[in-house]
Amino acid sequence: MYVNIDFNSDEAIYIQLRNQIIYCIATARLQEGDTLPSVRELADYVGINMHTVNKAYSILKQEGYVKLDRRKGAVIAIDYNKLKALQDMKDELRFILAEAFCRNITCREAHEVVDQVFNEFERGRTHVVR
Amino acid sequence: MYVNIDFNSDEAIYIQLRNQIIYCIATARLQEGDTLPSVRELADYVGINMHTVNKAYSILKQEGYVKLDRRKGAVIAIDYNKLKALQDMKDELRFILAEAFCRNITCREAHEVVDQVFNEFERGRTHVVR
Repeated sequence: MYVNIDFNSDEAIYIQLRNQIIYCIATARLQEGDTLPSVRELADYVGINMHTVNKAYSILKQEGYVKLDRRKGAVIAIDYNKLKALQDMKDELRFILAEAFCRNITCREAHEVVDQVFNEFERGRTHVVR
Repeated sequence: MYVNIDFNSDEAIYIQLRNQIIYCIATARLQEGDTLPSVRELADYVGINMHTVNKAYSILKQEGYVKLDRRKGAVIAIDYNKLKALQDMKDELRFILAEAFCRNITCREAHEVVDQVFNEFERGRTHVVR
Protein backbone atom coordinates (compact mmCIF):
# COMPACT_ATOMS: atom_id res chain seq x y z
CA MET A 1 0.00 0.00 0.00
CA TYR A 2 1.32 3.41 -0.95
CA VAL A 3 0.32 6.39 1.20
CA ASN A 4 1.39 9.96 0.63
CA ILE A 5 0.24 12.51 3.23
CA ASP A 6 0.46 16.24 2.56
CA PHE A 7 1.10 17.78 5.98
CA ASN A 8 0.55 21.28 4.55
CA SER A 9 -2.92 20.47 3.21
CA ASP A 10 -6.10 21.99 4.63
CA GLU A 11 -7.57 18.50 4.55
CA ALA A 12 -7.41 16.57 7.84
CA ILE A 13 -4.86 13.74 7.83
CA TYR A 14 -7.43 11.03 8.62
CA ILE A 15 -9.49 12.19 5.62
CA GLN A 16 -6.41 12.08 3.38
CA LEU A 17 -5.68 8.57 4.65
CA ARG A 18 -9.26 7.47 4.02
CA ASN A 19 -9.22 8.94 0.50
CA GLN A 20 -5.96 7.27 -0.40
CA ILE A 21 -7.08 3.87 0.84
CA ILE A 22 -10.24 4.19 -1.27
CA TYR A 23 -8.09 5.22 -4.24
CA CYS A 24 -5.97 2.07 -3.68
CA ILE A 25 -9.16 -0.02 -3.76
CA ALA A 26 -10.36 1.67 -6.97
CA THR A 27 -7.04 0.95 -8.67
CA ALA A 28 -6.92 -2.61 -7.25
CA ARG A 29 -3.74 -2.01 -5.26
CA LEU A 30 -5.97 -3.17 -2.40
CA GLN A 31 -8.52 -5.88 -3.05
CA GLU A 32 -11.39 -7.59 -1.25
CA GLY A 33 -9.96 -9.66 1.61
CA ASP A 34 -6.62 -7.81 1.77
CA THR A 35 -5.46 -6.85 5.25
CA LEU A 36 -4.52 -3.25 5.98
CA PRO A 37 -1.37 -2.59 8.02
CA SER A 38 -1.95 -2.55 11.78
CA VAL A 39 -2.75 0.85 13.26
CA ARG A 40 0.66 1.02 14.91
CA GLU A 41 2.52 -0.02 11.75
CA LEU A 42 0.82 2.56 9.56
CA ALA A 43 1.15 5.31 12.18
CA ASP A 44 4.89 4.61 12.44
CA TYR A 45 5.32 4.37 8.68
CA VAL A 46 3.54 7.66 7.92
CA GLY A 47 4.81 9.41 11.04
CA ILE A 48 1.41 10.25 12.50
CA ASN A 49 -0.53 9.57 15.67
CA MET A 50 -2.19 6.17 16.15
CA HIS A 51 -5.49 7.94 16.91
CA THR A 52 -5.44 9.43 13.42
CA VAL A 53 -5.06 6.02 11.78
CA ASN A 54 -7.75 4.63 14.05
CA LYS A 55 -10.12 7.40 13.01
CA ALA A 56 -9.50 6.71 9.32
CA TYR A 57 -10.08 2.96 9.80
CA SER A 58 -13.28 3.58 11.79
CA ILE A 59 -14.66 5.81 9.05
CA LEU A 60 -13.75 3.25 6.38
CA LYS A 61 -15.62 0.66 8.43
CA GLN A 62 -18.63 2.92 8.91
CA GLU A 63 -18.72 3.68 5.18
CA GLY A 64 -18.54 0.02 4.23
CA TYR A 65 -15.02 -0.39 2.85
CA VAL A 66 -13.42 -2.49 5.59
CA LYS A 67 -14.41 -4.92 8.30
CA LEU A 68 -12.54 -5.07 11.57
CA ASP A 69 -11.53 -8.66 12.16
CA ARG A 70 -10.42 -9.55 15.69
CA ARG A 71 -7.44 -11.56 14.52
CA LYS A 72 -6.50 -10.02 11.18
CA GLY A 73 -7.31 -6.37 11.98
CA ALA A 74 -8.78 -4.18 9.22
CA VAL A 75 -9.71 -6.21 6.13
CA ILE A 76 -11.02 -4.81 2.85
CA ALA A 77 -14.71 -5.80 2.55
CA ILE A 78 -16.84 -3.63 0.30
CA ASP A 79 -20.51 -2.98 0.86
CA TYR A 80 -22.05 -2.66 -2.61
CA ASN A 81 -25.08 -0.57 -1.80
CA LYS A 82 -25.30 1.11 -5.16
CA LEU A 83 -28.26 3.38 -4.56
CA LYS A 84 -26.62 4.82 -1.47
CA ALA A 85 -23.30 5.11 -3.32
CA LEU A 86 -24.98 7.06 -6.13
CA GLN A 87 -26.62 9.43 -3.66
CA ASP A 88 -23.34 9.93 -1.75
CA MET A 89 -21.55 10.65 -5.01
CA LYS A 90 -24.14 13.23 -5.99
CA ASP A 91 -23.87 14.99 -2.63
CA GLU A 92 -20.10 15.18 -2.92
CA LEU A 93 -20.04 16.11 -6.61
CA ARG A 94 -22.39 19.01 -6.05
CA PHE A 95 -19.74 21.29 -4.53
CA ILE A 96 -16.94 20.26 -6.85
CA LEU A 97 -19.10 20.84 -9.93
CA ALA A 98 -20.27 24.15 -8.46
CA GLU A 99 -16.64 25.31 -8.51
CA ALA A 100 -16.34 24.13 -12.10
CA PHE A 101 -19.62 25.76 -13.15
CA CYS A 102 -18.53 29.10 -11.63
CA ARG A 103 -15.47 28.97 -13.89
CA ASN A 104 -17.54 28.28 -17.02
CA ILE A 105 -16.60 24.62 -17.32
CA THR A 106 -19.29 22.93 -19.42
CA CYS A 107 -21.11 19.69 -18.71
CA ARG A 108 -19.27 18.11 -21.66
CA GLU A 109 -15.90 19.12 -20.22
CA ALA A 110 -16.92 17.61 -16.86
CA HIS A 111 -17.79 14.36 -18.67
CA GLU A 112 -14.34 14.33 -20.28
CA VAL A 113 -12.66 14.69 -16.90
CA VAL A 114 -14.82 11.86 -15.51
CA ASP A 115 -13.70 9.70 -18.46
CA GLN A 116 -10.05 10.52 -17.85
CA VAL A 117 -10.30 9.55 -14.17
CA PHE A 118 -12.14 6.30 -14.95
CA ASN A 119 -9.45 5.47 -17.53
CA GLU A 120 -6.86 6.11 -14.83
CA PHE A 121 -8.55 3.49 -12.63
CA GLU A 122 -8.77 0.99 -15.49
CA ARG A 123 -5.12 1.53 -16.38
CA GLY A 124 -4.20 1.20 -12.70
CA ARG A 125 -5.95 -2.16 -12.60
CA THR A 126 -4.22 -3.58 -15.65
CA HIS A 127 -0.82 -2.66 -14.22
CA VAL A 128 -1.32 -4.37 -10.91
CA VAL A 129 0.28 -7.82 -10.86
CA ARG A 130 -0.92 -9.93 -7.93
CA MET B 1 -27.39 34.58 0.84
CA TYR B 2 -28.48 31.32 2.40
CA VAL B 3 -26.00 29.42 4.55
CA ASN B 4 -26.66 26.16 6.31
CA ILE B 5 -23.87 24.84 8.53
CA ASP B 6 -23.89 21.27 9.82
CA PHE B 7 -22.18 21.47 13.20
CA ASN B 8 -22.08 17.66 13.43
CA SER B 9 -20.22 17.25 10.14
CA ASP B 10 -16.64 16.00 9.90
CA GLU B 11 -16.01 18.85 7.49
CA ALA B 12 -14.49 22.00 9.00
CA ILE B 13 -16.94 24.91 9.24
CA TYR B 14 -14.81 27.26 7.12
CA ILE B 15 -14.77 24.63 4.36
CA GLN B 16 -18.57 24.24 4.57
CA LEU B 17 -18.90 28.03 4.35
CA ARG B 18 -16.56 28.17 1.34
CA ASN B 19 -18.45 25.35 -0.41
CA GLN B 20 -21.81 26.97 0.15
CA ILE B 21 -20.70 30.36 -1.12
CA ILE B 22 -19.36 28.67 -4.29
CA TYR B 23 -22.68 26.82 -4.62
CA CYS B 24 -24.48 30.18 -4.36
CA ILE B 25 -22.29 31.51 -7.19
CA ALA B 26 -22.98 28.43 -9.34
CA THR B 27 -26.73 28.88 -8.88
CA ALA B 28 -26.50 32.68 -9.37
CA ARG B 29 -27.76 33.49 -5.90
CA LEU B 30 -24.48 35.41 -5.74
CA GLN B 31 -23.22 37.16 -8.85
CA GLU B 32 -20.11 39.00 -10.04
CA GLY B 33 -19.86 42.28 -8.12
CA ASP B 34 -22.15 41.24 -5.26
CA THR B 35 -20.90 42.05 -1.79
CA LEU B 36 -20.72 39.30 0.82
CA PRO B 37 -21.92 40.08 4.34
CA SER B 38 -19.25 41.55 6.59
CA VAL B 39 -17.27 39.03 8.62
CA ARG B 40 -18.98 40.13 11.84
CA GLU B 41 -22.47 40.00 10.29
CA LEU B 42 -22.03 36.50 8.89
CA ALA B 43 -20.38 35.23 12.10
CA ASP B 44 -23.30 36.56 14.16
CA TYR B 45 -25.89 35.22 11.71
CA VAL B 46 -24.46 31.69 11.57
CA GLY B 47 -23.40 31.68 15.21
CA ILE B 48 -19.70 31.02 14.60
CA ASN B 49 -16.39 32.67 15.35
CA MET B 50 -15.26 35.65 13.24
CA HIS B 51 -11.94 33.88 12.60
CA THR B 52 -13.82 31.06 10.87
CA VAL B 53 -15.58 33.46 8.49
CA ASN B 54 -12.29 35.25 7.87
CA LYS B 55 -10.61 31.97 6.99
CA ALA B 56 -13.38 31.09 4.51
CA TYR B 57 -13.17 34.53 2.87
CA SER B 58 -9.36 34.34 2.65
CA ILE B 59 -9.54 30.97 0.92
CA LEU B 60 -12.20 32.24 -1.50
CA LYS B 61 -9.88 35.14 -2.30
CA GLN B 62 -6.88 32.86 -2.74
CA GLU B 63 -8.89 30.57 -5.02
CA GLY B 64 -10.12 33.46 -7.15
CA TYR B 65 -13.79 33.77 -6.22
CA VAL B 66 -13.75 37.07 -4.32
CA LYS B 67 -11.71 40.23 -4.09
CA LEU B 68 -11.28 42.05 -0.81
CA ASP B 69 -12.25 45.68 -1.36
CA ARG B 70 -11.18 48.14 1.34
CA ARG B 71 -14.54 49.90 1.40
CA LYS B 72 -17.03 47.26 0.32
CA GLY B 73 -15.43 44.21 1.97
CA ALA B 74 -15.55 40.86 0.16
CA VAL B 75 -16.91 41.21 -3.38
CA ILE B 76 -17.59 38.34 -5.80
CA ALA B 77 -14.98 38.52 -8.59
CA ILE B 78 -14.31 35.30 -10.43
CA ASP B 79 -10.96 34.40 -11.93
CA TYR B 80 -11.77 32.37 -15.06
CA ASN B 81 -8.57 30.40 -15.39
CA LYS B 82 -10.13 27.43 -17.10
CA LEU B 83 -7.08 25.22 -17.45
CA LYS B 84 -6.36 25.49 -13.75
CA ALA B 85 -10.06 24.95 -12.96
CA LEU B 86 -10.08 21.76 -15.03
CA GLN B 87 -6.97 20.47 -13.28
CA ASP B 88 -8.41 21.34 -9.84
CA MET B 89 -11.64 19.55 -10.72
CA LYS B 90 -9.76 16.45 -11.82
CA ASP B 91 -7.74 16.35 -8.59
CA GLU B 92 -10.89 16.62 -6.51
CA LEU B 93 -12.97 14.23 -8.61
CA ARG B 94 -10.32 11.53 -8.37
CA PHE B 95 -11.21 10.55 -4.81
CA ILE B 96 -14.96 10.87 -5.20
CA LEU B 97 -14.95 8.74 -8.33
CA ALA B 98 -12.66 6.24 -6.59
CA GLU B 99 -15.42 5.73 -4.01
CA ALA B 100 -17.93 5.28 -6.81
CA PHE B 101 -15.70 2.90 -8.75
CA CYS B 102 -15.17 0.73 -5.64
CA ARG B 103 -18.93 0.32 -5.46
CA ASN B 104 -19.25 -0.69 -9.13
CA ILE B 105 -20.73 2.58 -10.34
CA THR B 106 -20.07 2.80 -14.07
CA CYS B 107 -18.69 5.70 -16.04
CA ARG B 108 -22.12 6.13 -17.66
CA GLU B 109 -23.80 6.35 -14.25
CA ALA B 110 -21.25 8.97 -13.17
CA HIS B 111 -22.10 10.98 -16.31
CA GLU B 112 -25.78 10.83 -15.40
CA VAL B 113 -25.09 12.20 -11.93
CA VAL B 114 -22.98 15.00 -13.45
CA ASP B 115 -25.90 15.84 -15.75
CA GLN B 116 -28.33 15.92 -12.82
CA VAL B 117 -26.13 18.32 -10.86
CA PHE B 118 -25.59 20.60 -13.86
CA ASN B 119 -29.36 20.65 -14.40
CA GLU B 120 -29.74 21.62 -10.76
CA PHE B 121 -27.49 24.65 -11.35
CA GLU B 122 -29.37 25.63 -14.51
CA ARG B 123 -32.72 25.31 -12.76
CA GLY B 124 -31.35 27.32 -9.81
CA ARG B 125 -30.37 30.09 -12.24
CA THR B 126 -33.75 30.32 -13.92
CA HIS B 127 -35.48 30.64 -10.54
CA VAL B 128 -33.37 33.53 -9.31
CA VAL B 129 -35.08 36.85 -9.92
CA ARG B 130 -32.69 39.78 -9.57
